[in-house]
Amino acid sequence: MSETDAVALTADLIRCPSVTPEEGGALALLETVLSGAGFACTRVDRGGVANLYARWGAKGHAKTFGFNGHTDVVPVGDAAAWSRAPFGAEIVDGVLYGRGATDMKSGVAAFAAAAVDFVSTTPPEGAVVLAITGDEEGDATDGTVALLDWMEANGEAMSACLVGEPTCPERMGEMMKIGRRGSMSAWFTVKGVQGHSAYPHRARNPVAAMARLMDRLASHPLDSGTEHFDASTLAVVTMDTGNPATNVIPAECRGTVNIRFNDAHTGAKLTDWLRAEADRVQDEFGVSVEMRVKISGESFLTPPGALSDLVGAAVKAETGIDPVLSTTGGTSDARFIKAHCPVVEFGLVGQTMHQVDERVEVEQIRQLKRIYGRILADYFG
Amino acid sequence: MSETDAVALTADLIRCPSVTPEEGGALALLETVLSGAGFACTRVDRGGVANLYARWGAKGHAKTFGFNGHTDVVPVGDAAAWSRAPFGAEIVDGVLYGRGATDMKSGVAAFAAAAVDFVSTTPPEGAVVLAITGDEEGDATDGTVALLDWMEANGEAMSACLVGEPTCPERMGEMMKIGRRGSMSAWFTVKGVQGHSAYPHRARNPVAAMARLMDRLASHPLDSGTEHFDASTLAVVTMDTGNPATNVIPAECRGTVNIRFNDAHTGAKLTDWLRAEADRVQDEFGVSVEMRVKISGESFLTPPGALSDLVGAAVKAETGIDPVLSTTGGTSDARFIKAHCPVVEFGLVGQTMHQVDERVEVEQIRQLKRIYGRILADYFG
Ligand SMILES: [Zn+2]
Ligand SMILES: [Zn+2]
Repeated sequence: MSETDAVALTADLIRCPSVTPEEGGALALLETVLSGAGFACTRVDRGGVANLYARWGAKGHAKTFGFNGHTDVVPVGDAAAWSRAPFGAEIVDGVLYGRGATDMKSGVAAFAAAAVDFVSTTPPEGAVVLAITGDEEGDATDGTVALLDWMEANGEAMSACLVGEPTCPERMGEMMKIGRRGSMSAWFTVKGVQGHSAYPHRARNPVAAMARLMDRLASHPLDSGTEHFDASTLAVVTMDTGNPATNVIPAECRGTVNIRFNDAHTGAKLTDWLRAEADRVQDEFGVSVEMRVKISGESFLTPPGALSDLVGAAVKAETGIDPVLSTTGGTSDARFIKAHCPVVEFGLVGQTMHQVDERVEVEQIRQLKRIYGRILADYFG
Repeated sequence: MSETDAVALTADLIRCPSVTPEEGGALALLETVLSGAGFACTRVDRGGVANLYARWGAKGHAKTFGFNGHTDVVPVGDAAAWSRAPFGAEIVDGVLYGRGATDMKSGVAAFAAAAVDFVSTTPPEGAVVLAITGDEEGDATDGTVALLDWMEANGEAMSACLVGEPTCPERMGEMMKIGRRGSMSAWFTVKGVQGHSAYPHRARNPVAAMARLMDRLASHPLDSGTEHFDASTLAVVTMDTGNPATNVIPAECRGTVNIRFNDAHTGAKLTDWLRAEADRVQDEFGVSVEMRVKISGESFLTPPGALSDLVGAAVKAETGIDPVLSTTGGTSDARFIKAHCPVVEFGLVGQTMHQVDERVEVEQIRQLKRIYGRILADYFG
């Protein structure tokens, strides 16, 4: 039996124009490939988003290794600036060009090909699951979350999961992610009392109150990092008044902060802290401070252990490099999976993701497939 | 010889629609009245603004009492909201209605009538001067300043001056102004380095720097008042970013402060302080802070003495009230006159100035004329 060609599969996927939330034929293609190898496939579509769940082996087996990834891609951007057709999947001098080449059609193709070859050549005692979404780059509310909801409702589960997002900054193999900082934003509206700037004691200045609030928030060290995380950060990203008159103290001022927080915090506790600081300014300035908070994701961590050891050993064996266990970067769908089973992320070099001329060395795709295959072999071995 | 009717003259002036910078016939009317009483009149027009200089007596006399005021008025605003025609000068139940009724056609009419009657009945040893402008409510660059420039160039001078602006908060006679706080604004632009809000250490956040700067400026007590002045004040009136993305630290943030300052400060020294605080934030945040300053007027004071005693005694004699010597309120043309001779401001109750249904009790106009007449008599007596 011939090996599945992960490079050809990546190219075929790139030719599917699956810009979020378009399916573009990408999941249909994968369904064909996986069904042909004996995977039970279910389309788990929700809210206009297409998702694919594929399982080889018994449902609910205690030893079920899962892969997660997405086939949707960000828009092409300035199409004229590309040197190759964004959905052409041209290979030039060993480099495959196209939107999704690194983020992350190559990753999906690599784990699909590895899984197909693994179950075909060495059918394991257990199950292999692929949970592939068509909405990671968008709102992500009906993507991996929909898959996990469906799995729970249908007695499907994973005992461990690997997300195939690109994780290596510069060299293949140098980094895996065992967690991510959480992210939240808070929008403040300070409401005071308008007045003439010659008589500030008769007004209640929302602009001065906002300056105090924002300086306090930005000056407060949240922590100095934890065992596996960088320090949490808070960035003041806006303050706006829209007052054209220098002789008028306006009635209102708006401001926004964005917080990236590690496992020393929770979104709820940070919300309490923000509210307490808002209350303090309310008292000091006699203003009222309205606050709206959106928690995009809590921080999460799969502590170093069996899963990261497994992935690390496979990476080392194939690349010669011991990957760093990192928690840097923005959010990923791993934040949803963490509630269900241990999860780590490992994939190729992501330098050109979301850019013009997104591209990948085809050899990296082959190497990634070998790493994923070794992970499966070692997990069930 | 019959007395000049200050109420009728006020009404005639109100009927002239002299919204800044329109002359509206107001100065022409005054020129007719004053010329008829032996005043040498000169139109000192500059930059599209009409001004009137009128002198009775010898030019350059060491004892020259001057009155200053303006005939221009602010716009009517919502004309439909007025219960009387804004330029109709209707008198209802002893109250005269119209734009300029308090600010300050009544004041101009009162001092013109007082001056005419005084020189007609008791020709003084000295001179009486009326410097009346058609641009106090606008930019004021070609108004009283133009009159003072012209006077200096033509050997004209005043030994003391009274500005007839409304000065009484609620009751006729309760307040004169012997000075005013200065006013200045500063516009700051903080320029940093844009970046992703997940990695604030790679950016240089101009919004956080602005918050720090503004909180420091607003928190710094400038003084606690001086012998004749209230405390200086600083109001933060704007902070603006215009950044729609919570995951981006923007490159720039703008902010504005307005300062009202007493005789413990000068505009130049405050500019130095603002620049020093801007420099401090530059160092702390690694940003650059650009600053533009406009000094609208320095603080000024005519210390209590002969002139305020003279005015106070006349007010007391006519109203029974000892006027408070105040330095409150915004700017007035007295700030220009101060460089030439002692100046105080006294006029009627200004409650309805700049409002819909601006109005004045006609008895107050008569009382004001008597006060001005008594000031002239006492000055030359
Ligand atoms: Zn991705
Ligand atoms: Zn006025």
